[in-house]
Amino acid sequence: MRSVDLNSDMGEGFGPWTIGDGVDDEIMPLISSANIATGFHAGDPSIMAHTVKIAAQHGVSIGAHPGFRDLVGFGRRHMNANPEELVNDILYQIGALREIAKLHDLPLQHVKPHGALYMHAAQNEELAEMLVTRLHAISPNLLLYVMYGSAIHKTALRIGHPVVCEFYADRDYDNSGSIVFTRRVGALDANDVANKVLRACQDGKVRTVEGSDIDISFDSVCIHSDTPGALALVKTTQDLLQQAGITIQSPSH
Amino acid sequence: MRSVDLNSDMGEGFGPWTIGDGVDDEIMPLISSANIATGFHAGDPSIMAHTVKIAAQHGVSIGAHPGFRDLVGFGRRHMNANPEELVNDILYQIGALREIAKLHDLPLQHVKPHGALYMHAAQNEELAEMLVTRLHAISPNLLLYVMYGSAIHKTALRIGHPVVCEFYADRDYDNSGSIVFTRRVGALDANDVANKVLRACQDGKVRTVEGSDIDISFDSVCIHSDTPGALALVKTTQDLLQQAGITIQSPSH
Amino acid sequence: MRSVDLNSDMGEGFGPWTIGDGVDDEIMPLISSANIATGFHAGDPSIMAHTVKIAAQHGVSIGAHPGFRDLVGFGRRHMNANPEELVNDILYQIGALREIAKLHDLPLQHVKPHGALYMHAAQNEELAEMLVTRLHAISPNLLLYVMYGSAIHKTALRIGHPVVCEFYADRDYDNSGSIVFTRRVGALDANDVANKVLRACQDGKVRTVEGSDIDISFDSVCIHSDTPGALALVKTTQDLLQQAGITIQSPSH
Amino acid sequence: MRSVDLNSDMGEGFGPWTIGDGVDDEIMPLISSANIATGFHAGDPSIMAHTVKIAAQHGVSIGAHPGFRDLVGFGRRHMNANPEELVNDILYQIGALREIAKLHDLPLQHVKPHGALYMHAAQNEELAEMLVTRLHAISPNLLLYVMYGSAIHKTALRIGHPVVCEFYADRDYDNSGSIVFTRRVGALDANDVANKVLRACQDGKVRTVEGSDIDISFDSVCIHSDTPGALALVKTTQDLLQQAGITIQSPSH
Repeated sequence: MRSVDLNSDMGEGFGPWTIGDGVDDEIMPLISSANIATGFHAGDPSIMAHTVKIAAQHGVSIGAHPGFRDLVGFGRRHMNANPEELVNDILYQIGALREIAKLHDLPLQHVKPHGALYMHAAQNEELAEMLVTRLHAISPNLLLYVMYGSAIHKTALRIGHPVVCEFYADRDYDNSGSIVFTRRVGALDANDVANKVLRACQDGKVRTVEGSDIDISFDSVCIHSDTPGALALVKTTQDLLQQAGITIQSPSH
Repeated sequence: MRSVDLNSDMGEGFGPWTIGDGVDDEIMPLISSANIATGFHAGDPSIMAHTVKIAAQHGVSIGAHPGFRDLVGFGRRHMNANPEELVNDILYQIGALREIAKLHDLPLQHVKPHGALYMHAAQNEELAEMLVTRLHAISPNLLLYVMYGSAIHKTALRIGHPVVCEFYADRDYDNSGSIVFTRRVGALDANDVANKVLRACQDGKVRTVEGSDIDISFDSVCIHSDTPGALALVKTTQDLLQQAGITIQSPSH
Repeated sequence: MRSVDLNSDMGEGFGPWTIGDGVDDEIMPLISSANIATGFHAGDPSIMAHTVKIAAQHGVSIGAHPGFRDLVGFGRRHMNANPEELVNDILYQIGALREIAKLHDLPLQHVKPHGALYMHAAQNEELAEMLVTRLHAISPNLLLYVMYGSAIHKTALRIGHPVVCEFYADRDYDNSGSIVFTRRVGALDANDVANKVLRACQDGKVRTVEGSDIDISFDSVCIHSDTPGALALVKTTQDLLQQAGITIQSPSH
Repeated sequence: MRSVDLNSDMGEGFGPWTIGDGVDDEIMPLISSANIATGFHAGDPSIMAHTVKIAAQHGVSIGAHPGFRDLVGFGRRHMNANPEELVNDILYQIGALREIAKLHDLPLQHVKPHGALYMHAAQNEELAEMLVTRLHAISPNLLLYVMYGSAIHKTALRIGHPVVCEFYADRDYDNSGSIVFTRRVGALDANDVANKVLRACQDGKVRTVEGSDIDISFDSVCIHSDTPGALALVKTTQDLLQQAGITIQSPSH
């Protein structure tokens, strides 16, 4: 790899509240693609406008990060909503950000569902089918950020909608290639994360929790901005990649 | 007048709830422009998608009807929000509808703030200035529905943003040309309303609550869909206008 | 049976919206127990205050009807919330109604979870255990309305918390004694419903969708106020029970 | 003064979000009365349950801190709601906390409206009258925290409802005895604040922004937990008062 995308969730506050360490403004200059919360699980129009502004200042590409309508649960809890409703909710949130982004003349590069909705689209074929079909009809060039091999990934490949596959720098993988959700005791070591990303970029391999190496295929590295110590993770990773001659740039660059 | 626009608020439900008599589907074929609630005071993405669909079926032009973020108050209560935030809220809601409208290939014709936000934009010069300036920069052709002579009307004329002035068929006027808000005891008589509209269209006059006739200037007739008996008001008005040779068509027709 | 409780969901509006036929004020005089929506899936403090007032006027006993925090889905969609959070949500809603009920000197008789939360408490033993344990500690006399044989029913029996078992007049049963959820095409026949209730009260039997008769045990008849034609169902049922000499009265009467 | 109450707003998070420095758990042991956010402007049932628990652990008296229904605006924006609705909203929130407090056997000591609702009750006689009248009827011993000389203070004195007057340690006063709202550039000096409080306690005087000394009468010192550096302000103030022999204890102690 000569270049890779580095994406992070941005603007995940609401009204008076910020998320995690509150370091969006520091992380933004270090990444190439920002997933901007669009109001249902986090984010409000004014936070969105601010986030778009700092993305524009740093030449960062932007995407919508729509979630379940669940502020109190931060979109992390599955809700038994039907696909029709979820697709409408997603389009609503995409459009909201698209309009606000016009304030700074930024086009939308991508959409990446958030949290439980990301997992739902990864697993539920009916939602994946309806979402990709409608997106493809109305926004054929809006990149879909997906988990490699997921339902939405396969659907997009079949329909011909452009995708960006992600490598999750701050999550563990198991031998099946799935992400392991652990309740982590301590913070992540920034050098470990950076080296894991570099190896994935250079060799296409990641060490699993079982201790094996598996092949990994991706276009974008995701580091979650609400992971404790996120700024150090992003900074160290960005430094190491650049030292290794790998440019960080968005897919639409 | 050979033709006039007839606009009504549509999609003012939320989740399981519909507004007023629940007759959107019956009113839609009779009007030329639909103001579609966009989620903050009423409306949700699936109701919006349905409303756009029936508008498309009947060739009705659509506009965003953004309100204060106040579901329980139906956007009818003034909130002391700053103009910056309100403009972001309005852009958010416009974009949400614009995206959903793509499902049926409908462009947005207009935007008309709802309830207390409509009155606030009519009276507050700072909001009017910021709203018109930003709209004009990013959507120079998106028609603004306004009250004749209001702050937002004057601002739009100065900046050169296109407007549509309204005549409120189901509201009373006073000698100053302002609308009188009354807690009405009985329902409106449909023939009275229709004749009032016809006279306004033909003679440019309306009888005030004080008993005088005043001149009135407008491009569109508004009948609120949550006025009790709204369907009869719209139907009778539409009939009478057509009998008088006045075509009902939207400004973007 | 010489007497039976007749319960219905009341106050399921929100802000400007009412549910179903909007006939709460007509149904209230006909029932003995009102399940009052408490704000998370429907209901707002002013609707609650109004509903308490009309319950007090007609001598109807009241209970809290807490739901999932999901207005747009009317609490009918399961949400993957943990039991701790759900119990706190339920206590919050119980207390809110209890305080408003003091305005009319009404004590809370009962609590009945709504919609998907009712089903969740019926099926999930961890939630049932935590909910009954906490309720029993802080409100040992607050009656729990439950489905016969459900997880929450069994837990309450074990812990010794008082329960009221329900017969669902406007739902079909299958041979297992479970309720069958059908997307109904037509409205229910009021005489059929009333006769089904009378037979259940007199003989303890109900005819299942498979055509068999099963034994049924209950203390309260539930008729949902948002079933189309609910007023007629309640009125006809109340009439028939009274003609048969069965008094309608709440368990706390 | 031999003793004084020290109150602070607690639990002003929502779902994943905490307010200010996120130091509730550190401030709680230092105060005598906690104003707990009750869900409309901040706070959710699980945060409330946690806050009640830590209050119980430290022997802190608790009160409800109800606000306008405005999460995104944190209850700091006036909303044009009618008194009837606001009183119902306040009762709803009081009851919600009262029920959750039973989990830890804590009684409610007081109620203190939050933000713009506090100011509204201080200025609007119709709201003050309706609120105090209803509170007095249903909870005659629930202390009302008020601004000295405000509409709600005068109403409570007239009706005979018990009040607690506040001194605002982290706000400036003017010669009229009113609080001056300033957009502060730097953080407050903890020693300045502590000395201001000590002088108010010992001499009943405060220096105004105009440079005069005015008399001040109060029962409780308020330090806002979302003021930057709040923990240091509270700690330094608590230390200085104790060194001066002034015990910090709640009015219901």
